[in-house]
Amino acid sequence: MYFEIFRQMRKQLAQTEVWFDAAVTAAEARGFKADAFLDCRLAPDQFSFARQVQIVCDTAKQAASRLSGVDAPVHADTETTLDELRNRVRAVIAYLDRFTAKDFTEAATRSITQPRWEGKTMSGADYFVEHAMPNFYFHLSHVYALLRSNGVRVGKRDYLGALSLRSP
Amino acid sequence: MYFEIFRQMRKQLAQTEVWFDAAVTAAEARGFKADAFLDCRLAPDQFSFARQVQIVCDTAKQAASRLSGVDAPVHADTETTLDELRNRVRAVIAYLDRFTAKDFTEAATRSITQPRWEGKTMSGADYFVEHAMPNFYFHLSHVYALLRSNGVRVGKRDYLGALSLRSP
Repeated sequence: MYFEIFRQMRKQLAQTEVWFDAAVTAAEARGFKADAFLDCRLAPDQFSFARQVQIVCDTAKQAASRLSGVDAPVHADTETTLDELRNRVRAVIAYLDRFTAKDFTEAATRSITQPRWEGKTMSGADYFVEHAMPNFYFHLSHVYALLRSNGVRVGKRDYLGALSLRSP
Repeated sequence: MYFEIFRQMRKQLAQTEVWFDAAVTAAEARGFKADAFLDCRLAPDQFSFARQVQIVCDTAKQAASRLSGVDAPVHADTETTLDELRNRVRAVIAYLDRFTAKDFTEAATRSITQPRWEGKTMSGADYFVEHAMPNFYFHLSHVYALLRSNGVRVGKRDYLGALSLRSP
């Protein structure tokens, strides 16, 4: 299910464009620049909107890289406009588009680590389910919630995107 | 991966107890009843904290039921206290604890529907990845964000819980 879930992450990242469009519409209607959303926070000591977007991008990108062994593009966290954040999202989507199911055949048994784990490791399977997915959706939901709580007109359909519904 | 992801949902639901404890601590320190959190919203036209907890419970419960064919417990959405919400969470955890990996061997090919899809269906695989998981984490993150944005001291470790880290 690795590949299918990365395809879903790709879909969710693409949905953020819909939210960003709604943010621009809201900003224009209320007479301010949409880039003002970048500094919004749900709590003074929580990450800003811009940082949440960067992290959701990095979570998907790093998970795909760690579970496949394919190097990920490097991003410098220097975005100061909504358009620059869009480009960040698009770069990660383009990166995810390179993968096929084959790239993840050994994902479950890979040994994953990162600096903050101080030499400890997780299996690819545990890392994906316990760390990558919950973090991805955490930051994605915060991106959405930050716009929603600031009056941007987005709804659950904009969050989920089109579903693979079949007619009877 | 169905069973592993339901185990993760169970773990995430159990983490909400840590958040609820922190909410009680915050309320006591600031001199109000923790039940006051139940009416909090991130936007006036978004679901309340209580409703977000109910939905995250229902999303996990209904997904496990639809993908296994095992009837789920019914809950009436009548909770008015934090302790009642805890009981709701615990009931769903107890339900999820009944499952083994075998219960989901046919999950991917089951035909899933719900009233709002007006007769249309999704495969179990599509439903789980496109609908159940994103919704579960959406509402879970909103539960967290509602407390966090109201001054409750919870952090990312409280969100993720203990990771299956292995020593070198």
